[in-house]
Amino acid sequence: MPDAATHDQATPEVVARIRESFGRQGLMRLLGAELVQVAAGRVGISLARRPEVSQQHGYVHAGATSAIADSAGGYAALTMLPDTAEVLTVEYKLNLLAPAAGDRLEATGVVVRSGRTLSVCQLEVHAVTAAARKLVAVGQQTVIGVPRES
Amino acid sequence: MPDAATHDQATPEVVARIRESFGRQGLMRLLGAELVQVAAGRVGISLARRPEVSQQHGYVHAGATSAIADSAGGYAALTMLPDTAEVLTVEYKLNLLAPAAGDRLEATGVVVRSGRTLSVCQLEVHAVTAAARKLVAVGQQTVIGVPRES
Amino acid sequence: MPDAATHDQATPEVVARIRESFGRQGLMRLLGAELVQVAAGRVGISLARRPEVSQQHGYVHAGATSAIADSAGGYAALTMLPDTAEVLTVEYKLNLLAPAAGDRLEATGVVVRSGRTLSVCQLEVHAVTAAARKLVAVGQQTVIGVPRES
Amino acid sequence: MPDAATHDQATPEVVARIRESFGRQGLMRLLGAELVQVAAGRVGISLARRPEVSQQHGYVHAGATSAIADSAGGYAALTMLPDTAEVLTVEYKLNLLAPAAGDRLEATGVVVRSGRTLSVCQLEVHAVTAAARKLVAVGQQTVIGVPRES
Repeated sequence: MPDAATHDQATPEVVARIRESFGRQGLMRLLGAELVQVAAGRVGISLARRPEVSQQHGYVHAGATSAIADSAGGYAALTMLPDTAEVLTVEYKLNLLAPAAGDRLEATGVVVRSGRTLSVCQLEVHAVTAAARKLVAVGQQTVIGVPRES
Repeated sequence: MPDAATHDQATPEVVARIRESFGRQGLMRLLGAELVQVAAGRVGISLARRPEVSQQHGYVHAGATSAIADSAGGYAALTMLPDTAEVLTVEYKLNLLAPAAGDRLEATGVVVRSGRTLSVCQLEVHAVTAAARKLVAVGQQTVIGVPRES
Repeated sequence: MPDAATHDQATPEVVARIRESFGRQGLMRLLGAELVQVAAGRVGISLARRPEVSQQHGYVHAGATSAIADSAGGYAALTMLPDTAEVLTVEYKLNLLAPAAGDRLEATGVVVRSGRTLSVCQLEVHAVTAAARKLVAVGQQTVIGVPRES
Repeated sequence: MPDAATHDQATPEVVARIRESFGRQGLMRLLGAELVQVAAGRVGISLARRPEVSQQHGYVHAGATSAIADSAGGYAALTMLPDTAEVLTVEYKLNLLAPAAGDRLEATGVVVRSGRTLSVCQLEVHAVTAAARKLVAVGQQTVIGVPRES
């Protein structure tokens, strides 16, 4: 996955558009997820670990991990499209590599191919503490650009 | 996906074990998900559609859809394992076929192959109203059985 | 996966179009694969097991298994589209459940959702002998319909 | 995907073990695939484009692309395991990004997580000419280490 440094800044318009859309996702609010990075072709979302987003052993549930990874990828794809477009997830696949421990998760979506119709993103989720950053999930996602409903 | 009618009943011990584990999943409680079927090799989970589990257009967020599909598959695999085991999701892939509308979603996990180490499940999610039942997502999942932490 | 009996016959035009396309796939000829079923939304391809398509233990190589599964799904999707269209595989995922032994493999692709742009198929591969038929791989595939190049 | 430069050399024993196994894969010989890199956690396989490995438009068939990507990932995982082990593919997912044109394809498998039981690899396939190198497929794969049959 390309390093953050290789991604250009997104324009203020793109950042505003994505912040506004993110704000309307009830699930992100329910989970307590935060949008922490919006660059051209790269978006990051953070989620604090707490009992409400856990599975039966106290780690973050794969469903919550997926939710932030999927949103990060979808918004990463959206940064590359004209502002008349929005995106829908066609499909994704996620490998869970290690328990989602840490103080919080950071999901990153990076565009691998941006097309007129379909875009493909790579997804990574790290578990983060003050001392360490561990890769806990990797994924691959296909999204489709569609005309924006106003 | 095999029909519900082809699945044997789970024993009361298996049902109790899965209900207890489900009850400890903070995310399922946060989402408002309910365990609606536990058969041998087949588990169903239901989720009412409401703003808190939505994406930006009011449909159920792919992350919430994934969460119930992943849990349904994991528990379906668990029904086939000895009671000293538990399961972890290795990976899954989900295709989103249509907007997750309806009054509620029903996710079903069905075991395709149950092995000593790895099991494979097929996942389906339907959007349900009083009048109709529409397939909105299909997936495929790999889970690993591990010794149960007490 | 829906039973064969639930699929309508394809029209002679559709069968002819798919036979002709299959005949131009050099890889299918190299592998020795045969088109054995073309129904509406369902296509079957057979591959005899022989050393040339093996991995290091003599079972059919996952790559050959994938090749016939991917082609079966793509052609299944094509049966549902107008004759001005052709299909490209967007992505697929395959779980290998058991060694691909037997005398031959039979791959089946079945359309789960046929859309104007994207279609989704389920894939199954069985290892077949005179006495038995064993499921050795299951998959899920996304294909895109595009205007046919003449 | 980490750069080649970040991978250590594999020991001569590991290289010999993988060359020997590759040599026994009938399908790799039939396709005309070559093992071009064996590093610790990274393996590359090359395939010349020719009519025998094509689909109906003359590009390399997704099945052949998959075959070399799957083998590259499996052998990459194998480089990290003790010499008493071998690997089986549990599952993989491949996105096809662009037509597999060029003079030849180069598939690279890189280990993302190497575990006692399961390993996860990222897969990339480039279409290569004297003048250019284009990413045509990306994938993600799960393999399982098993005791080596002698």
